Order: sequence, then structure tokens, then C-alpha cells
Amino acid sequence: MEEITALRERMAHITAINQATAVLGWDQQTYMPAGGGQARADQLEALSGIGHQLLTASETETLILRAEKAVGSLDPDSDEFAFVRVARRDYDQAAKLPESLVKELASVTTLAHEHWAAARSHSNFAEFSPWLSRIVELVRKVAEAIGYTDRPYDALLDQYEPGMKTADVEQMYQSIGPQIAELVKKIVEQPGRSVTDLVLRRDYDTDKQRQFGEHVVHALGFDFQRGRQDVAVHPFCTSFSHNDVRITTRYEKNWLPAALFGSMHETGHALYELGVAERYDRNVLEGGTSLGVHESQSRLWENLVGRSHAFWKHYYGDLQALFPESLSDTDLDTFYRSINAVSPSLIRVEADEVTYNLHTLIRFEIENELIEGRLEVKDAPEVWNSLYEKYLGIRPPDDAHGILQDVHWSGGGIGYFPTYTIGNILSVQWYKEAERSLGVTFADQIEHGDFEGLRTWLTENIYQWGRKYEPKDLVKRVTGRTMDTAPYLEYLTTKYSAIYEL
Amino acid sequence: MEEITALRERMAHITAINQATAVLGWDQQTYMPAGGGQARADQLEALSGIGHQLLTASETETLILRAEKAVGSLDPDSDEFAFVRVARRDYDQAAKLPESLVKELASVTTLAHEHWAAARSHSNFAEFSPWLSRIVELVRKVAEAIGYTDRPYDALLDQYEPGMKTADVEQMYQSIGPQIAELVKKIVEQPGRSVTDLVLRRDYDTDKQRQFGEHVVHALGFDFQRGRQDVAVHPFCTSFSHNDVRITTRYEKNWLPAALFGSMHETGHALYELGVAERYDRNVLEGGTSLGVHESQSRLWENLVGRSHAFWKHYYGDLQALFPESLSDTDLDTFYRSINAVSPSLIRVEADEVTYNLHTLIRFEIENELIEGRLEVKDAPEVWNSLYEKYLGIRPPDDAHGILQDVHWSGGGIGYFPTYTIGNILSVQWYKEAERSLGVTFADQIEHGDFEGLRTWLTENIYQWGRKYEPKDLVKRVTGRTMDTAPYLEYLTTKYSAIYEL
Repeated sequence: MEEITALRERMAHITAINQATAVLGWDQQTYMPAGGGQARADQLEALSGIGHQLLTASETETLILRAEKAVGSLDPDSDEFAFVRVARRDYDQAAKLPESLVKELASVTTLAHEHWAAARSHSNFAEFSPWLSRIVELVRKVAEAIGYTDRPYDALLDQYEPGMKTADVEQMYQSIGPQIAELVKKIVEQPGRSVTDLVLRRDYDTDKQRQFGEHVVHALGFDFQRGRQDVAVHPFCTSFSHNDVRITTRYEKNWLPAALFGSMHETGHALYELGVAERYDRNVLEGGTSLGVHESQSRLWENLVGRSHAFWKHYYGDLQALFPESLSDTDLDTFYRSINAVSPSLIRVEADEVTYNLHTLIRFEIENELIEGRLEVKDAPEVWNSLYEKYLGIRPPDDAHGILQDVHWSGGGIGYFPTYTIGNILSVQWYKEAERSLGVTFADQIEHGDFEGLRTWLTENIYQWGRKYEPKDLVKRVTGRTMDTAPYLEYLTTKYSAIYEL
Repeated sequence: MEEITALRERMAHITAINQATAVLGWDQQTYMPAGGGQARADQLEALSGIGHQLLTASETETLILRAEKAVGSLDPDSDEFAFVRVARRDYDQAAKLPESLVKELASVTTLAHEHWAAARSHSNFAEFSPWLSRIVELVRKVAEAIGYTDRPYDALLDQYEPGMKTADVEQMYQSIGPQIAELVKKIVEQPGRSVTDLVLRRDYDTDKQRQFGEHVVHALGFDFQRGRQDVAVHPFCTSFSHNDVRITTRYEKNWLPAALFGSMHETGHALYELGVAERYDRNVLEGGTSLGVHESQSRLWENLVGRSHAFWKHYYGDLQALFPESLSDTDLDTFYRSINAVSPSLIRVEADEVTYNLHTLIRFEIENELIEGRLEVKDAPEVWNSLYEKYLGIRPPDDAHGILQDVHWSGGGIGYFPTYTIGNILSVQWYKEAERSLGVTFADQIEHGDFEGLRTWLTENIYQWGRKYEPKDLVKRVTGRTMDTAPYLEYLTTKYSAIYEL
């Protein structure tokens, strides 16, 4: 169809510019020398401005309107139909925001990021407070511009998790919060079994860590012909096409999990991007359907695979051989427990599987109160600290270990945190559904270093579709149900009851 | 002046896009995995298309016309005046070429490059011949579109060396060709002194090469806070701003000069870019004024510094200490001669200082004949081989070692080769002028590892000006004369008479 082709060409052009922007972002975080920062900001501003202009141009809307007419008679399940729907979504998301608001947000968040970093280093929320107030105000305007039926937070959430509502998130947390809090309580109060991560803090030569990590991510299915792994202070995954997906990691000599599980986490994101169907190349359907579904893949490969007993049954001998001085006195079961040690802590990115969702819950509650105007920014640290006490039983000693720890808000990323928990929940739902439908137990394959059955199922059921299906439709299509917290809670309870002998 | 500011903003925007394009090119040649190639081509096409469109838009010309009026009353030596002149030059260079020709050239050269690579690997010019014919035809159209008074080659040369004419190049080669041929003849026929590069072909651990190379380029003045060095198959220097200049090198275990002199060569280019005045940031005056002047810097640092006796008087002990097994039996003087061994050879990029210009002369003669229509592409290999016999006394055994060796023509780069020789000649002219005006002998400083006097003079007299002065004006301004081959010939004769005891 000529109308589809015309829209596709335009969107491919815009995609190429967005991919170029991603290349500049990757270089900025991996190799760029200090001096390059100022010019890079100008380059990124120029490119993202051009991408935004092309996307929101009236010519784009005309092409979309024409394509919408043309696909009207097509099967709603066709690629063409989905392509036009996603192009419309991208156009609307961009076009609804007035250029003045986009520019203001960009300039405020650039400065806010610096002030956040300074405030964090001084552990002084007051320095960041006026900037967060500005950001909350601007993000509220974003919500108004995007529009919502019930609650302003719906509009923000929808940017990251299409179709998800605030009420869904509340229900999600209500359904897991009490049981997780109960599980944490049992673990903390369990006197019999001592589980610590001290063995992971011994000496691990970083070059050997790199060797082992590259071996593992390759075994999981990361294709070094279609991607690479580099070092970054804050690890991430980025994609310049489904044949060029870059992951990054961070080596710490005295903290083995940083690189090891970090690499597996980013590999999960990468496998999703690498697994998108070839026919979506240069198409807006390329990429993942939402942050939550993306995170479900990073969590699945990091936790369900990487922190499983079966995985280490296969790999622990290799790891011991590589680090005899640090691991020869530690047997497989002890090592397995050490990588799954649970401990209520103050810092989200260091949290274990069990407590993690309590951290995102706290952020979600505060974000929602801020956006709905029931909480003032100046009072947020006190609320933060009280919520840590309520959910995790510990109180941050200062703002650096409390409300200033995350980068997200300084960049305007409000509405993002729940996607981490959506990812956790979905990771188990997919995994269990895959085992059910294939009639297998993946642990039996993983303990032989075989990840192909799992990866193939995920590719066929999730990865290949890219952005074709909205998250809710994808979950329904694959599992026959809506997002379900039961498998997740069962997984946590079973795994940690065994580890802690509850 | 408001008219200048408006033009400056537009040119800064275009510069940012061109810099972004350079980042993508750098990644393509350093880190990009194999799978990334197709998408990268699309991204580069999108960005360079946008850059070209913005530059050639009528809005740009309007801004230039306004700015030209506004600077009419200013000192022609002012930055503003130069800025408008260079903006006009860039605009004219781009706008004179019809978009259809630019696109045809881009698509033909993309394919031609592949066919050239295949033809070279098969050593079969016939495979590349039809593509070179197409390219010659298109490049002739480029010359017509740009325009010229005397000869079509003038238009091509001017793209790389503004203001230089074909007749100047002919005169240049006439002035050095016979004397160099004579010097080569004397060296080849000298029976007494045997000079070989065999010691450079021993084992040199590449990681140690990297350490030594980084130490040296840092000592020469390369600032790792404002740039980096990475590995590339074909080393190059590229700049994303005058505070982010990237050089690349190539390590060969059994060929020490590849990385060592390659790094110093690219450092010369980098010092030029890094030395441009801060006030030209985001200005079209940033960067080097021509390829020839740029090459004069890479040659100066590679040859006049890096292949000098004084340099190794300072560094040879360090090098020996790093590679005792390969160098302990070789004294400084022998090592110095080995890095300056002269031997007529078939491959330009491996040529020594003395024979190098004969290689570019051969290419210039063939290019000119092709462009002026006196030579048909099919007959070019025979002419190539005959010229090698005439100038270097050796005949290529096949096309791979002959006419297929260089990448330039497959990319449409006709008119480029003379700039290498311009660089060689100017490198000595600057160096001698610097010594004269400062009343010093740099060798006395270099033998103590002190490069600051030389670098400072070059920065003040050449680098800081960026593109402000056209090459001819710059030479005149700095040396008080036109480009002069005498110092260059004297340098070669003196240096190599001593090495070969002529």
C-alpha cells in the first residue's frame, strides 16, 4: 500500500535520527573524554530537536491520517495496522506537548541534574528542593497536555507503560505489598540460618570478571556480531538497530555482583531488542513495547536464570577455577545463598529480589501525592523516611541515603518507578507460562548450560513482536490472563523459604 | 552585530549535525559490531542529508548575504570577516552541486567501494574499471558544477586545498621530482652503507606498544582530557569539537612503526584541531584550513620530530628498556637509520620519506589525464605501471600492488593526493621558519623531551587560526613567502646524505 510505504519512509528517517542520537548518548557514557561534554550537549540538542520537529510536522500527521484510512479495512492484527497505530501513538505523544514545554523541561532538567548531583554529594535536599518543585510543576503540565480521564498520574505512567492506569498500579502494590512485607519480616526474624554476601566482597580481578561475564552473556544468547559490551559508570542497554545493540557494565574488584548480575540484567534487555523480527527493521515497531515488559526480560535473565541454583550448578565450578583464592572455601550452596541474601536496606539499586518492590512502592506513593498536589516537595524527605520505616523497618540517616539517591526525578522521570515492579511480576508470569506450555522445567536445561529453549520461547512469544502489541494485549495473548501477581509471590515465597529455611 | 549572530547560530547548528555525523563515523571504524553496518549507513545518510539541506537552504544564503553586507565595512583581517567568507565558501561548495549529482555520487561510490575492495582482493582491475569510469564521469560533472577558469582539475583540487591551482601542483612536482629521483638513485646505488628496517620487524608486545605510544603522544601535547586514542584498521583523526579530538592507531606485533609513527602522525592532526582558538568554538572557523596544511602537521610531528635523531636520543633508552629482547643488540644510531631506511617500493602508505612524493606524483599525473580526458580508465593500469618504472624503477607485479591499492578514487576522492606532498613541503618550511624566528634549534629541545617551544610556535602561528586564513595567505603571513620547496629538498638531502653517507 502506497500510503503505508510513504509513512514508513518518513518514520524510518525519523528512526535513523533517533538511532544516531542514541549513538551519541552511548559514546557520552562510555568513551567521551571530559572535554567533549559541552559540544555533545549541543549535538544532542540539535539531533533531538530535528527528530522532534520531523515527528510533529504537519506532513507526518497528514501521512498518518492517510495511512489510517488505508488500513481501516485491514485485519487489526496485521503488521500494517499495528504500524500505523504505533506511529499515531508516537506522533500524539510528541505533538501533544507544546514545543515551549519540551524546551523548558529540557533546560530545567539539564540544570536540575547538576543541582541534584551536588545536593546528593552534600546530602542536602534543600539544594535540590526548588528544582524538584519546578520539575513537578512542569510534569503536571505534561500530564495536562497529554490528557487523562481519571488521574494525572495516568498520563505520566502511560508514557512508559502504555495502557496502564494508576489504579492498576495501586492494585498491583496492594496485592504484593503485605505478603512481601510479611516475607521480609520472617526472614529478618529467622534466627537459625545466617546468610551473608561477604564472600562476594572478596578480591575479584576485574579482567577475569570481564572474561567470565563475556562468556556468560554469550552463552545466554548475546551475539557479539550484533552488539558489544563496554564499561559505563551507570550501566545501560541501548540499541542503534536490531543488529547493533550495546550493553554496558561496571567492574568492582570487591563486589562481584556489580558486573556479573549487571551484565546478565542488560543482556535481558538486549535479547529483547536483538529478538525483534527482521521485518520490523527501520520500523517504529522495532524495540520493546514498554519499560515494564523490557524490565521483565532484564529481571528474568538476571534473577530467574542468573540467581538460580541450576545456573550455578553449571557455572560455579568455572567461577571457582577462575577465582580459587576467593572461592575455594565456599561450596555451591553457600555461594547460592550469598547471591540471594535478603536484607532490608536503604538503597534501591543495591536491593535484593525480595525487598526491591518496597523501594519502588515508596517512590510511587510519593510521586502520586506530589502530582495530585497532596504533598509539598519540601515535606517529601520526611514522608520518604517515614515510608522506609513503615515498609522496611529502617530509617535513612540522611538525604543522600534517602530521597536524593535516584537520578530519575532530576530528569523529569516521574511515573517510571512502577515499571520495575511490573517487570518483576511479569518475569515470573512469562517464565511459568513458558514452562507450562512447553511442559518442561527450565532448571533441568539451565543446569546444563542450555538456555536455548527458554530464549526461543521468549523470542517467539515476546521479542519478535517488538512494539506490535500493547503490554496488556501481549500479556493476554501469551498467558491468556491479565498481569498476575500470584506466580511472582509464589516464586518469592518458595525460593526464599528454602534459602532461609522458613 | 545581529546579522553575524544570526548566521553564526545557523552555522553552529549545522556544525553540530556535522559533528554528530563524525561521531557515527568514528564509532563505525572503531567499535561498531559487524551487524551495525546497514543501519549505520542509513543513519549517516539521514544526518548528512539534513546537514546538506540546512546548509544549502535559501535561508542560509539569505543570512550570508545579510552578513556579507554587514561585514563590508569591517577590517578584512577581523574574525567576523573571515567567518562570513568561510561560511560563504562552505555554502557555495555545497550549493553549487545539484542534489541529484550529490545523491548519484553517494550511491555510486557506496557500491564502487565494495567493488574496489573485491577487485583489490582479486587483484583484478577489470572488476573496478566500469566503476572508476562512472566516478571519473561524475567527478568531471562536479568540476563543471563548481566551475574553473583554466583546468577542470583546479575545481577538484580547490575542494581540498583552497586557492591552489593545477599549475601550482605541476610546478611543485617539477621543482622536487628530479632532485628526489636523483637522491633515490644515489641511495639505491650506494654500496657502502647497508640500512635495513629488519629490527623493526621483531616481536613487540602490542600492549607495551600502546603504553609507550600513549606516553609519547601525551608528551607531544595530546591532551587525553580533550581526546582519546582508539584502535582502527585504517587509522585516522576526527574531531567532534576542539575539546573532543579522537585519534586512532593500529598495532602490529611485528612492525613497530605502524603504531608508533602512526600515532605521532595522527597526533599532528590532533594538535592542530586542539590548538584552534577557543573563540572559534561552534564556528565554521574551527578545524584546519586545508588538507595540505593539516598534513603538514601530521608529517611534521611524525617525521621531523618522530624520525629525528634528537627524538630517539631522548626516547630510545625507554624503548629498549620496554623491549630488551628485540632491541638490546641495536644501538641508537642503528635504530635511527632503521626507522629512516629508504627503499623504492610499490605501496604508498608504506613508503619512506624520500620516495613518498613520487607515489603521489604518479597519482596526480593519472588523475589529471583522466579528468582532462587524455587517458581512458581502461588504459590507466598500464600508465600506472609505467610511471612506477619511470619514477621508482620498479614495476608492480599485479593490480593489487598497483592501481588498486588506494581507497580514494572509489570514494570519489580525485584531487586529493597532491595535498600529501604539499604537507611534506610545508612541514619543513614551517619548522625552519620557527627555528629562524625563535633563533633556536629544536633538536636541542627535542633531545631533552621538550616539545613545548615547537608546539607553542605552531599553535600561535598556525593552529589558533583554524580556517581563518586560506593556505596561501597563511603561508605568506607566517613565512613571508609562498610555498617553498627549497627547505624541504635541503632537509631531505642533508638528512639522507648523512644516513647513507652519500
